[in-house]
Amino acid sequence: METKLSFKDNTVVISPEAPFVVIGERINPTRRKKLAETMAQGDFSVAQQDALKQVEAGAHVLDVNVGIPGADEPALMRGAVQAVMGIVDVPLCFDMANPDALKAALEIYPGKALINSTTAEEEMMVRVLPLAKQFNAAVIGVIQDESGIPATPETRLKVARKLVNRAADFGVPPEDVIIDCLALTVGADHHAGRITLDSMKLVRQELGVNLSLGASNVSFGLPDRKILNIAYLALAIGSGLTTAITDPTVPEIQTTILACDLLTGHDEYAARWIKAFRKRAQAAA
Amino acid sequence: METKLSFKDNTVVISPEAPFVVIGERINPTRRKKLAETMAQGDFSVAQQDALKQVEAGAHVLDVNVGIPGADEPALMRGAVQAVMGIVDVPLCFDMANPDALKAALEIYPGKALINSTTAEEEMMVRVLPLAKQFNAAVIGVIQDESGIPATPETRLKVARKLVNRAADFGVPPEDVIIDCLALTVGADHHAGRITLDSMKLVRQELGVNLSLGASNVSFGLPDRKILNIAYLALAIGSGLTTAITDPTVPEIQTTILACDLLTGHDEYAARWIKAFRKRAQAAA
Repeated sequence: METKLSFKDNTVVISPEAPFVVIGERINPTRRKKLAETMAQGDFSVAQQDALKQVEAGAHVLDVNVGIPGADEPALMRGAVQAVMGIVDVPLCFDMANPDALKAALEIYPGKALINSTTAEEEMMVRVLPLAKQFNAAVIGVIQDESGIPATPETRLKVARKLVNRAADFGVPPEDVIIDCLALTVGADHHAGRITLDSMKLVRQELGVNLSLGASNVSFGLPDRKILNIAYLALAIGSGLTTAITDPTVPEIQTTILACDLLTGHDEYAARWIKAFRKRAQAAA
Repeated sequence: METKLSFKDNTVVISPEAPFVVIGERINPTRRKKLAETMAQGDFSVAQQDALKQVEAGAHVLDVNVGIPGADEPALMRGAVQAVMGIVDVPLCFDMANPDALKAALEIYPGKALINSTTAEEEMMVRVLPLAKQFNAAVIGVIQDESGIPATPETRLKVARKLVNRAADFGVPPEDVIIDCLALTVGADHHAGRITLDSMKLVRQELGVNLSLGASNVSFGLPDRKILNIAYLALAIGSGLTTAITDPTVPEIQTTILACDLLTGHDEYAARWIKAFRKRAQAAA
């Protein structure tokens, strides 16, 4: 199944038959003081720098989040999206719990966006899925419902199926639903990583949909998180992950993704691998 | 399915439900001048050092190869195996094309060994499989027959099935056949890595057997091989790999394997990960 996102003439295809799609996560004021402060004042220059840096590092799509407590989020979202669209030409992913802010972004966006995200909670699905339909956007469906996060791959599959079915009820086709199987930290439960990998395999096999993941939670509370995160990224790609919301400006992450692209048949003549190697070699010289 | 190897009282279990099994590859004179020279003179002290270093670094099983052109391989094999058994207590993997050398090792070995390897060529299976039966050894079956290495996951599955069936004909049960799906270099064909990963998933799903791989071929001829090799190891573990013949004394490889163990549910309380982190921190201090 192919999920197509676009910005004007630029289309990005998410599919097991295409290179891995990196959704840059940096435009998010959580834990980023300078970005939060400038955004709150309607200054989007730091956000624009983040946009440029991430695209240069290899992001195919950019996540935009303006979650600042007490702010006029729809207005901030409009400002941030205009600023980002003015400086890069990649598809955007709108990452807001506030439906008015989500709508404000979708209204001014020329193309097919990604909505990040809805859970399988009915109250949330009836808010988010009609927006996806109205603005022809794709949506990330997070495997969590009124009972929380299911404990087994089989119960996670059930919630994934509910997300795909409810989306269809609202006129959003399965190829526009990207499932996030949620990686909890192995620091709290050493089965957590495995359950997510097994869930991904099962969801992919049974529903055929694309899979996304915020892959850095898995290492929370543990030492040497970077190594765990890149190993988990490769394990997850081996289990069917086709896109991730991550930080491509971390060199190890971007290099691992390029390596996985080459090793999964998505880098003809190893051209991108060799080009990136030369760039690293020049930077080191 | 569980493949059990043993040396005296020490049993190693290869299974998707157990930690990843590292088969140390260093006792092999190919491209190792000093080891080759000392071995050829009947001096196994370098081999013994290799054995100790690999077990200390985390090897669960050691591969022993004494392939030196023109040498009396059965005598060399007896000497090397005695020397290694005298210094470490892990199960061994006998890696010889010469059936007399293989037999010489199996005859003196107190436990259940692993034979590396047979292809699916009839001439080779009829030489190797009776030895596996006679000495109650497990065997690595390499997906290659009289026609070469099959091009697709479906045809590789067919050859894997032939290996398992012929082993059964000789009285070797499926749990004692470990299939090696062969990773060719992506430098020559950018689909090579993907075909092997897909073959592994298919063989695992259809036959339920354990999977092994010599994972470093995949990067042959390319720059930054180390990154490619560790990414492929994680991708392969995500696709069902349960053991690999590799060099645990390369820190990045061993760290990646420990990370994958933790992330696939085989490191309770992250105990081994944290212990290895402390060891790295001490070494760096």
